Amino acid sequence: MRVSELGERGLILRIRRAVGSGAPGVAVGIGDDSAVLEPSRGTRLLATTDLLLEDIHFRRRYAEPADIGWKALAVNLSDIAAIGGTPRFALVALACPAGTEVDDIDAFYEGMRLAAAPHGVVIVGGDTSASPDRWIVNVTLLGELEGAPKLRSGARPGDLLAVTGALGESATGLALLEATTAGAAAPALDRVERPLRDKVSQAHLRPVARVAEGRWLGASPAVNAMIDLSDGLAADLGHLTSESSAGARVYLEKLPISEAVWSVAAALARDPFELAVAGGEDYELLLAADPSAFPALAAGLEAATGTPLVAIGEIVEAEAGVAFLNSRGEPVPVGLGFEHFSSARSR
Amino acid sequence: MRVSELGERGLILRIRRAVGSGAPGVAVGIGDDSAVLEPSRGTRLLATTDLLLEDIHFRRRYAEPADIGWKALAVNLSDIAAIGGTPRFALVALACPAGTEVDDIDAFYEGMRLAAAPHGVVIVGGDTSASPDRWIVNVTLLGELEGAPKLRSGARPGDLLAVTGALGESATGLALLEATTAGAAAPALDRVERPLRDKVSQAHLRPVARVAEGRWLGASPAVNAMIDLSDGLAADLGHLTSESSAGARVYLEKLPISEAVWSVAAALARDPFELAVAGGEDYELLLAADPSAFPALAAGLEAATGTPLVAIGEIVEAEAGVAFLNSRGEPVPVGLGFEHFSSARSR
Repeated sequence: MRVSELGERGLILRIRRAVGSGAPGVAVGIGDDSAVLEPSRGTRLLATTDLLLEDIHFRRRYAEPADIGWKALAVNLSDIAAIGGTPRFALVALACPAGTEVDDIDAFYEGMRLAAAPHGVVIVGGDTSASPDRWIVNVTLLGELEGAPKLRSGARPGDLLAVTGALGESATGLALLEATTAGAAAPALDRVERPLRDKVSQAHLRPVARVAEGRWLGASPAVNAMIDLSDGLAADLGHLTSESSAGARVYLEKLPISEAVWSVAAALARDPFELAVAGGEDYELLLAADPSAFPALAAGLEAATGTPLVAIGEIVEAEAGVAFLNSRGEPVPVGLGFEHFSSARSR
Repeated sequence: MRVSELGERGLILRIRRAVGSGAPGVAVGIGDDSAVLEPSRGTRLLATTDLLLEDIHFRRRYAEPADIGWKALAVNLSDIAAIGGTPRFALVALACPAGTEVDDIDAFYEGMRLAAAPHGVVIVGGDTSASPDRWIVNVTLLGELEGAPKLRSGARPGDLLAVTGALGESATGLALLEATTAGAAAPALDRVERPLRDKVSQAHLRPVARVAEGRWLGASPAVNAMIDLSDGLAADLGHLTSESSAGARVYLEKLPISEAVWSVAAALARDPFELAVAGGEDYELLLAADPSAFPALAAGLEAATGTPLVAIGEIVEAEAGVAFLNSRGEPVPVGLGFEHFSSARSR
């Protein structure tokens, strides 16, 4: 059955059933003019929104509806994590062509539910519309914050720069998906073990936001500034240093780059450092922290969440700018990551 | 200058400057991973979202960027009004082609600011992206609610049905704009006075949400159910009766239809009742109220806000269904208003 046969009203009733009702803090959910919510007392309200467009942020050629739903929620989870908060309520606007199969819509919401459920996030409202051609998804995520937010502006010269997890998997996955679905795959790819290829593809299609990590780091007085890596390390570090009126040095050899990235990048004849620095969409957390507290911070985070925290450089005075240094300590030019409006490539 | 020359970072800085900062309740606004907000104590949180797409919800042929910005905010204001709340904070996602003039973006945010300012609503966050072709706007509006929400589900048999303001102006304006910009305008239009033509065009391009009215009605115990008229009286009454498990009778001769609608509809050879019943986008409030309290309710609303409240029918048992009656008391068939996914016409 196509959405045009179900109609908007039928679609909304279907979404309402799929999403369920009666979640804590939701007095009125999907189906009225506005959601009525009751956030936890004593918290401040967090709100972030992200728009994902077919052929700009994803391609239907390799992103299934469930992937799109998952990712649209995950990128917002990452924003709430990056400020140190707890995600709670999502509003989801979806536009798709009238000829879209209802099964695809169901899969989209199921993907979103899968990304939301581990964090107790519920969909409390939204909008549906026909689109002239492409899929369009906007998610607004509301969250709660206890204590002070971890802002981009709090980094100070002398702070250590650190990232959670590993870098470059999403960009490597994107390169792999583009190559294999364009029919121009390098034969060398067949020699890369399947689990490594799957790892990077999944990192791109179903990124996992660092929600528990963000909350844990958000509660630590050793963390002075935090941002999530959506546009790529180079671009997001640029945001952090710009907002903090500071500079930074990053040591390329310290970047956490997984075996999967090394293997797939080699098969695609791509530079793994470029993928790690300029690739984007890793949804890891980048933070500036007091150096004396760093060993305890990294050990504590790993003990609490299982996620490693890796020092990759330091914050310096603004005059020094932002430099990426090779193993000989020489600055190397790097791309600036994804910049909307400057190109039409998919990210 | 085009957006592609300014870049995403430059655009965000420009928006941040235009929007301003330091509004009450905004601890962190545009420019970080998430907004940090402090709603008024003792209120519940309202949240609604609306997606507006070029060629589905508006046409660039007659909607200027400032109109698009205004309307994208106004339709969300209307949702908060319809539940009886107070709008506070907006998140705005905008995608447009990379070749868009920066002046157009400025005008878009200025139109939005003009719609927001009278209500003290501030833009606290958002997202920007390149779009492959058309403009795409998503606004999420957060509000506050004291007391109980006015839901769609509270109507009871015996309630009077009433609407604020007048019906059909927006649909008449759309018909006028489509006719005049398609170059196929009826010569009879020239004989309609300019202020009447302007009135319906403006009603379509710059609808005014009934914010003060919604809050006043929201505080009245005589109002049992409320909804805003976005899809058209027939469709939205259908939502109200469906959620209330009730039926309704509407007397066409009681519908408030302005001189502007009569004149322009006649010149376009359109049925003014059809425009008032099935047209959509009036953003008036439709409510079900205790009949004994209605005279005081209407007088009180007009005294408080200057807006008339007109009884147009009554709620009946579900078995009777929803009927629109002519002056002889005979049911007449009416269209169902705008239904996404069933047609590609602009609204």
